[in-house]
Formats: sequence, C-alpha cells, structure tokens
Amino acid sequence: MNAEIIAAGSELLTPARSDTNSLWLTARLNELGVEVTQKTIVGDDRDRLAAAVRGALERVEIVIVTGGLGPTEDDVTREAVAQALQRRLVFSEEIRGWIEQRFARFGRPMAAINRRQAFLIEGAEQLENPNGTAPGQWIEDGGKLILLLPGPPNEMQPMFENFGLARLRERVPPQSIRTRFYRVAGMGESDLDQLIAPLYKPYANPVTTILAAAGDIQIHLRARAATNEQAEALAAELGAKIEAALGERIYSNDGSPLEKVVGERLKSRGETVAVAESCTAGLLGARITEAAGASAWFVGGFQVYETAMKTRLLGIDPGLIEAQGVVSEAVARALAESARERTGATWALAVTGAAGPDSAGAAAPGTVWIGVASAGGAEAKMFRFPGGRGRVRMFAVQSALNVLRLKLSGGTV
Amino acid sequence: MNAEIIAAGSELLTPARSDTNSLWLTARLNELGVEVTQKTIVGDDRDRLAAAVRGALERVEIVIVTGGLGPTEDDVTREAVAQALQRRLVFSEEIRGWIEQRFARFGRPMAAINRRQAFLIEGAEQLENPNGTAPGQWIEDGGKLILLLPGPPNEMQPMFENFGLARLRERVPPQSIRTRFYRVAGMGESDLDQLIAPLYKPYANPVTTILAAAGDIQIHLRARAATNEQAEALAAELGAKIEAALGERIYSNDGSPLEKVVGERLKSRGETVAVAESCTAGLLGARITEAAGASAWFVGGFQVYETAMKTRLLGIDPGLIEAQGVVSEAVARALAESARERTGATWALAVTGAAGPDSAGAAAPGTVWIGVASAGGAEAKMFRFPGGRGRVRMFAVQSALNVLRLKLSGGTV
Repeated sequence: MNAEIIAAGSELLTPARSDTNSLWLTARLNELGVEVTQKTIVGDDRDRLAAAVRGALERVEIVIVTGGLGPTEDDVTREAVAQALQRRLVFSEEIRGWIEQRFARFGRPMAAINRRQAFLIEGAEQLENPNGTAPGQWIEDGGKLILLLPGPPNEMQPMFENFGLARLRERVPPQSIRTRFYRVAGMGESDLDQLIAPLYKPYANPVTTILAAAGDIQIHLRARAATNEQAEALAAELGAKIEAALGERIYSNDGSPLEKVVGERLKSRGETVAVAESCTAGLLGARITEAAGASAWFVGGFQVYETAMKTRLLGIDPGLIEAQGVVSEAVARALAESARERTGATWALAVTGAAGPDSAGAAAPGTVWIGVASAGGAEAKMFRFPGGRGRVRMFAVQSALNVLRLKLSGGTV
Repeated sequence: MNAEIIAAGSELLTPARSDTNSLWLTARLNELGVEVTQKTIVGDDRDRLAAAVRGALERVEIVIVTGGLGPTEDDVTREAVAQALQRRLVFSEEIRGWIEQRFARFGRPMAAINRRQAFLIEGAEQLENPNGTAPGQWIEDGGKLILLLPGPPNEMQPMFENFGLARLRERVPPQSIRTRFYRVAGMGESDLDQLIAPLYKPYANPVTTILAAAGDIQIHLRARAATNEQAEALAAELGAKIEAALGERIYSNDGSPLEKVVGERLKSRGETVAVAESCTAGLLGARITEAAGASAWFVGGFQVYETAMKTRLLGIDPGLIEAQGVVSEAVARALAESARERTGATWALAVTGAAGPDSAGAAAPGTVWIGVASAGGAEAKMFRFPGGRGRVRMFAVQSALNVLRLKLSGGTV
C-alpha cells in the first residue's frame, strides 16, 4: 500500500523553512508497511492544493494533507479538499461548541474567525486535537483514504498517534519489514556499484538504496514480507551476498559511524589514539570525539597547521621538511611517531596534505598523506581526493579513521 | 514568473533524509524575482518522475529537477525527463571524454557505468560540473525552461551559480532587488527578535527573514522595486534601524562567516592565533581554517581532551586542576596562556567545558569556559549553552571566535 503526503503552507516554499512533518509521518507509515511514494509542498492556494490532492488520489490509496487547517483566510485545506472530492463543507455545531469550550478553558471568548475551523467535509469524521483548535478529518472516498492533519507538530503528532494510527492499521494488510544498513569506507561510489549492482539488481525485494558522502557509502536493504521470518530470510539472503563481495570494506552493519566503530574497537582492546593534524587543523579530533564516550580512547593531539609548528610542537627536523616537502610520506610518518611519543597514546594518526589552492608546499591540491604510528613503528599512505577544500578535508578525516580501522584488524594501510 | 522544484531520489522519501537543495535554490530564485510555487519529491521511478515533470510544465515557466544524474541504474532523471518531453537521449562523445579525463586526474580508469552520464536529452545544452562527473542539462521546450541539476549540494550549487544564474536572469523580467545580510553573535534568537521585531514588522517590503543556528543568527532583508535606487532606499532605511538597534552584536553585514571576519581582522593587523581545545577536541581549529587563506593567521594548537594532556602537552599544574576543576576560569586562562607561549602566536583561545553527559569533572553539561590570552595577559568567560553534545560544541566554537572578535575591537570578553 502506498501513500502520498501533501504539505500545505506558503511558508514551506521559502528558503528558510522546510516540511518536517512528512519525515515523522513517513517513519510511522513505514512501520505499518506503507511506502511513501511522493511528497508535494504547495502554498496557500486553493486551486493548486485541490489539483495536488486530485493527482495524488489517482496514484495512491492513502493521501495525507498536513497544514492549512487554521482559522485564517489563508488556511485553505478544508475548501481545497472539498473541491477535489466534489463534496460540500458542513458546519458542525458540535465542533464549534468544542472550540468555544477550549477558549473558555483559557479564559477567553472564541474569536469569530475560529468558526471556520468548525466546518467538516461532508461525510468526514473529525479527529480530536488535544493541543489546538483545528480538528483533523478522516475521509473515505471510493476506496481511498484522505487524512487532514494540522501543521504544528505538537498537534499533528498526538492526533495521528492517538486517532489515526490504529484505524490505519486495520486497513493495511499486515506485513513485516526487516532491514540491513551497511557502511563502507575506502572505495568510490561507482566502483562499489559496479561490484554489487549485479547482486542487488535481481531483487525487487529487498529494495536497495545507496547513499554516498565523502569517503563514506551507506547501503540500505529493506525487505518486506508477510511474516518476520520471510522478511528476515529475504534480507539475510541479499545481505550475505553483499557482505561476501565487500568483505573488509564494510565497517559497520548496523549503521554505526566510523568514529564509533573505531572507538569501540580501541576501547575493547584498552588502547588509545592521538592525532597530529596539518591541513585538517583539528577536524579529525573533532570527528573522533563525536562518538559518545570518546574520552575512553581519545587523548588529544597537535594542530600543526603552520609548517613551523611541525618543528616547534612536534620536533620535526626542518631539514626533513625541506628535503621531502611538508606533504610527504616521511613527514606524515614523523608526525605520527612524534605525536604518539609525546602523548603516550597506543596509536597516533597524522594528516598532512594540500587541501586547497592556498596550501603550502608543492603538492597538487587533493594530495593527502595519512601517517599511523604504533609500538610496531610508523607507516604512511598517500591519497588523492577530488573536490574543494572542505570535501578534501572530510575525505582525509574519513580515510585516516579507515587506516586505523584496517590496522586494528591486522591489515596494512 | 514561477518555478517548481522537483527533487528525485528514493532516499528523500525515507524518514531520515529531506530535500535541502530546494531551500538553497529558492533563495537564489527569489533573488531573481522568481517565486517557487510548488515542490515535489519523487523516488527513483521513471514513470512517476516523468509524470511530475509533465505536471509541473503545465503550471509554471521554469522546472528544476535535482538529483538522479548519477551513474547507477536508479539514477533515472535523464530518461524520465526525455520521456516527459518526448525527446530522445543522445550520447555525447565530448562528455564521455570529459568524464574520462576527470577519472584520469585521480589516476583511475573511467568505470563503465559512468557512460550513462554522457547522455544528453536531445536539444539540451550541458552545464559543466566542476565537482563531479554528472553534467547538468539546460533544456528549452515550447517557451518553458527545464534545468537538470545533480543532487550533491557541492556539485549543484557551483553549477547553478556559475552556469545557470546568469542565463536565467536574461529570461526573467527585470526588477531591482537590494538585500542586506547581517550576521549576529552573542545573543539568542528570542532576545534578538524582541529587539528588532518592532522595527521590521511595519515593513512588508523589505521582506525580513531570520535564521538561527548555534550562537549565530542571520538576518536577511530583501527589498524589491522598479529601480535600483528605490530598492536600495528601502533596504537602507530598515537596515539603518536594525544596525542602530544591534550595534556591536552585528559581526558582518555582507554575510561573511565569523571565522572569516576574525581572520581578516587578524591579517590586517599582522597578528596570529593559536588554540587549546578540550571539549571541542579540534573543532575550533577546523572552523578557523574553513576560511580560505587561514594560514596567514592560524598557526596551530593543542587538543588537550584527556585531563592528563593538559599537563602533559601544556604544562598545566595538576594541583590547579585538582583545586579548581578542569572546567574552570583558572584552567581556561592557564590553557590559553600556555598555548600562546608554546606556539608564539599573538593570541590564543582556550575552550574547556562539559559538552555532554560523559564529560569529566563536576561542571553541569553545557557549561563552557572560554579563555583568551594576549601580550596583555589572559582572561576567561563562562557560558551556559543549551542542547546536546554537538550543539554545545558548536556554541563553544562560535563563542570563542566572538570573544576574540570583541577583544580585537578593544572590548572585554
């Protein structure tokens, strides 16, 4: 069963505001096994909203409209949906009395404009609003279901949970959903897709979604079936194939971010990590400490942004920098070694690279050396990252964490 | 002139992701005097996307489709728009060559699936993508304009700014728009709105928009008129009132971010800054170096996350930490003084705070001390920030930069 969500409100067509109700509603609908196949955002325009509702009713079984149930002239949802369904609006004396009582509870008379909120679409059932004056409406029309919900989340959410969800469940064929959420580091999106597309393409169920950020790819599998066992079997079958194809490149199978995966592995070994950051200037330390509990494995480090600081704070030989260049294997190794020694951490990661056009040194923009030091010595690996300054720094941080992850698994960088 | 924006991508129909490209595009379109009247979000489904494009073309003059230009099978925007316009797809040898070159620059062969990205809709002009392999497309059809843009914001935004905006301006009836873009630090959104709402409320033109992030508030004024002079007069009149009300709290009147404002002030004085970061663990250094050219004023610093590192890397007396607590005025001052001394920078900023529930020490979560040291000595200021760990760290970074800005203006922290 499919649903569409229509958000009504001119403010949702400005640069500053976006519709967030649909995210919350999508989560609730997905739990029932209902897919959201389209979302539409329209302004306070009766004809446009009516057309959007008519269009949605041609495509899906469930149409939810949020917003536009307020008392003012630009709240046009009631009129627009009535127009779309070719039904009349009917004044409800009961709702008027209920709105009046609500005002009375706050010691105020009902404002005249609130009368607008007492109109129901002919044949609609009202959904009580515990937190506001706008009742919702539940309408059945030729086997389709139309739900009108208020825009403010603190009104919409309890109304949907208390009065919409249980009734909706009765209409939706029962089904189970099982998911997998892999995260992959160390390869590009095209390379990954070439490897796994032949695996997931044959499956319409589970549905596979791939999302890529700088150096980080997420793979979502979502299997639907009549029973938990069937859904789990579908998810497990495709999941096993993807796991076999990607192997060590999968760093997480529950969606955990890389800094958490690496941190927890360090914690379980009773080990710690320090950093020495040149072009990233602190971003790696900031990222490592995004994970809750990072004080158990992160000690600190050095922001050696200026070339002179590499010598001043970490004692790197100026002759080495002169001879090898500041973006070099030798300097990356020396930075990692010195950071490890000066902090006493089990591991140290170093980042030295040319993030952007104003970088020091002769290295091409996008060139980054990652160094890693441990009791066994230091090594370093070169990367070439695409994109501008910000993107290169994000790639560098992700890659440094991945280098440590691979070292912790006993691999090489 | 009206536009609709269609975002393509099944991930945008999940509970976790929302379309943010349309917000950015709406701001650019509004500046041209183009209103966005509807937004649609569809999954990776060719027929549904084609239907959405056809619907939009019936309603408005400009249709922008974002996303779905990637190399994989579920990137269906090219096919869907060709279907909607009843045009063929044409393979472009030129684009293929260009994509191949881009791969070559990163030392990799072009993946076979990237060939998909070299197809243009018949009659389309390609829009160059400086940050990715997916070219955009500019299509004219019966007096209507269809723009296909890639989904990743770092590809979409420069493409639209560099290749879309100027051409679009030629098609839009001229009107003059003058804007002001203030940024404010050191006060909350409610306090700010109470102060300036009486000033901007009487004006329907300029339109005033206020956006708040952690410790950073943006105020946009947008005046529209038939001539430049009239628009400028409208913007200047309200602008002067807001400037008078907010005074020093405005750090930028051209939208420049705080790290750039502070950095350029340091540069013009020939001065430098270093950092010592506890709870922010590098985030302040990373933020300072987001500004291009930061190597002229940022030298580096110390990530003293673990309490022991404050002593080990910066020589802070363990007795002082024991007596005053690690989140204290004395420790913030000592960290700043030591970082300044060890780096030789003109200024040093220190951050020590309780960012979240697992923070060391007895300070309440959200408590942060910012220290600042210069040749004149060191001082520190306490802040109490709302929100979770991530938000407190962002507030701390913003506030540290603002402390330095006020010191550079000769103020006190």
